[in-house]
Amino acid sequence: MRQSDLFTKTRKEAPKDEVSKNAILLTRAGFINKEMAGVYSYLPLGLKVLKKIENIIREEMNALGGKELVLTSLQRKDVWEKVGRWDDKNVDVWFKTKLKDNVELGLGFTHDEQIVNLLTEYVSSYKDLPLYLYQIQTKFRNELRVKSGIMRGREFVMKDLYSFTRTEEEQDEFYEKAKKSYMKVFSRCGIGDITFCTFASGGTFSKYSHEFQTLSLAGEDIIYVDEKKNLAINKDVFDEEGLVTAGLKRDDLVERKSIEVGNIFKQGTKYTDPFNLYYQDENGKKQSILMGGYGIGVTRLMGTVVEVLSDDKGIIWPEEISPFQVHLVSLGNDENVIKLADEIYKTFQKEGIEVLYDDRNVRAGEKFADSDLIGISTRLVIGDKALESKKLEVKDRSSGQTTETDLKSFIKKFKK
Amino acid sequence: MRQSDLFTKTRKEAPKDEVSKNAILLTRAGFINKEMAGVYSYLPLGLKVLKKIENIIREEMNALGGKELVLTSLQRKDVWEKVGRWDDKNVDVWFKTKLKDNVELGLGFTHDEQIVNLLTEYVSSYKDLPLYLYQIQTKFRNELRVKSGIMRGREFVMKDLYSFTRTEEEQDEFYEKAKKSYMKVFSRCGIGDITFCTFASGGTFSKYSHEFQTLSLAGEDIIYVDEKKNLAINKDVFDEEGLVTAGLKRDDLVERKSIEVGNIFKQGTKYTDPFNLYYQDENGKKQSILMGGYGIGVTRLMGTVVEVLSDDKGIIWPEEISPFQVHLVSLGNDENVIKLADEIYKTFQKEGIEVLYDDRNVRAGEKFADSDLIGISTRLVIGDKALESKKLEVKDRSSGQTTETDLKSFIKKFKK
Repeated sequence: MRQSDLFTKTRKEAPKDEVSKNAILLTRAGFINKEMAGVYSYLPLGLKVLKKIENIIREEMNALGGKELVLTSLQRKDVWEKVGRWDDKNVDVWFKTKLKDNVELGLGFTHDEQIVNLLTEYVSSYKDLPLYLYQIQTKFRNELRVKSGIMRGREFVMKDLYSFTRTEEEQDEFYEKAKKSYMKVFSRCGIGDITFCTFASGGTFSKYSHEFQTLSLAGEDIIYVDEKKNLAINKDVFDEEGLVTAGLKRDDLVERKSIEVGNIFKQGTKYTDPFNLYYQDENGKKQSILMGGYGIGVTRLMGTVVEVLSDDKGIIWPEEISPFQVHLVSLGNDENVIKLADEIYKTFQKEGIEVLYDDRNVRAGEKFADSDLIGISTRLVIGDKALESKKLEVKDRSSGQTTETDLKSFIKKFKK
Repeated sequence: MRQSDLFTKTRKEAPKDEVSKNAILLTRAGFINKEMAGVYSYLPLGLKVLKKIENIIREEMNALGGKELVLTSLQRKDVWEKVGRWDDKNVDVWFKTKLKDNVELGLGFTHDEQIVNLLTEYVSSYKDLPLYLYQIQTKFRNELRVKSGIMRGREFVMKDLYSFTRTEEEQDEFYEKAKKSYMKVFSRCGIGDITFCTFASGGTFSKYSHEFQTLSLAGEDIIYVDEKKNLAINKDVFDEEGLVTAGLKRDDLVERKSIEVGNIFKQGTKYTDPFNLYYQDENGKKQSILMGGYGIGVTRLMGTVVEVLSDDKGIIWPEEISPFQVHLVSLGNDENVIKLADEIYKTFQKEGIEVLYDDRNVRAGEKFADSDLIGISTRLVIGDKALESKKLEVKDRSSGQTTETDLKSFIKKFKK
């Protein structure tokens, strides 16, 4: 894509109504547009990153045996009354609305009840299980206050996977596999080394659950990290019993602030039994189904990456989720330089290398500042030097290091 | 994918609460699940078709120069008051909801106002135009009655593109290109030969617009078709003036029922002027911006394909939007047959051929009936015959014709 075709422009000033680093940088660089507090549109650059993160998650969920579907935003009252979650006293983040005939509806803040209700149509035998279903879908939560940019939204994208298993062993086996799969997602998104599988409270479902916490001063959570074991424990279960169950020792832990980017829960039969979602075993006997819930805040993950991978110049996208693979930057007005840059741009397009081409007629300093702000992982500079020496200058956004290469080796490296 | 892994099962009976052919067939075949009237979840098979249709539209919109973004569902009152469309008296399909502090919000039924408001941040110069932006996104419409399955939903997927141009010529040129692009989308979805670019009323924007109407007895529209010119005129402008403007002659036309699958509008300055979205021309003079709106009901398009391409046995998916390229069906319990089918399945996966493999231990009649109902475009049958003769039986779902082929030629044909 030519940068002159990008309708968004970078801004020097931070938006007045934002305090979080992710919202400030993503807005300044033209990735998102705030429609109201906690509600953001994704502009072309932002949508590219979002889709890449979604695809990483999709690949890992498919590898886990997950099947993708998409449930609805509009929710029926009777479905949510079953386990008592329709009442605003029990769930304080509902957006509610009404049909013309005054029938009340809700906007899905999660989808446990809906998917269990749906499965009563399809699951009845041991042969139908285990079953792992997931969706990547928009959630609505009527949060009282939102000031963390895309890290806490009133409208946001989430991946929610639900497991339905026959036995504790089957449940536990999948749960452990999901842990590994989650760490793979966060590694591919460039934050694996500062994200910890964290022993945490199980909320209303069970005594314990696991969260995935990314170290950041912008985080709202406190965790205690065992850096050797690559594990952590959340403050809310940081007591003797918690430590023993998690297999951690107080002396090995350091206190850190962190952002929750994912969580996994064993939900037991809390939803399945009330909906009469049972299965018949091999002997024709009715049995309960164990459910698990596995969430990743997709837009929150994108915001977290910006919080933890950025410098005073702008965003630093990890390779796998960079909006483009290469930022091609031409310098000056020399006809031959422009010709060379145009040719390289066309070659990249032909070779399937995703490229943003800064073809604008502005000074070098502005181009470099914009390129640092947008944060594409690799920058290729075409100026007089490239013309003379046939060597291309490659800058890595993360390390800041500049190397030289020839076109052929560069294409070989980036061609998919 | 192995069919034994597909949690949805086919049903012999039609769901009791559906009257439309598309909802009946898509439900029976396991593509969708009704959550309430006009609100459907997309199950794995349905999601695959939906994504394929979305990708066809995406490719064609990109080819038109469109840039993709995603706007929000939650909508601000002040944005919609500007042109008077917040009021339920003027727009009767709003779903409204409220923030905790009682601030009223709406759920987007379309996005004209929001995108114009957004562009006031980014567009100011003639250099920023023309601009073509689109999204593929969920819309909410509080319809009084819905009984047409996924052809008219309260929650549904739509592609909406908006054009912003400087002059009538620039607008008209894009409008004509969009017409061709739309016909390409409908052709790729298998309904090009029965879909007509139809001269129609311009509603509140202009005197005329164009709809894309697909012939079907299930349609709610009446159009008059000139089969030689491949054009039509909607009943609502079927008068002398309409005929002259459309360049059609009464005697050349036949009356038909049809389904509107897309529409394109010239919106003039109806939205841009009230939002103060202007541009400065080359001479620094303030100028109005002409807007156009271009919609395709994505889920409606999917429903329409089922309405018009199906027989008494089930759905007939056109190749490009078939949930899988091939339905591989093994017959009987012969170990060698199963081994051969397993091998072919693995080969297809390796070669990147999308395959649904009916590996279930059920009788041939049931497999064929299910295969016809699900409607994958090509069926490959592996039974004793395949084992003996090394020839594979290929059945085309659309024509019903059976041919023989060897594995190598088959793979060559279907490999992408």
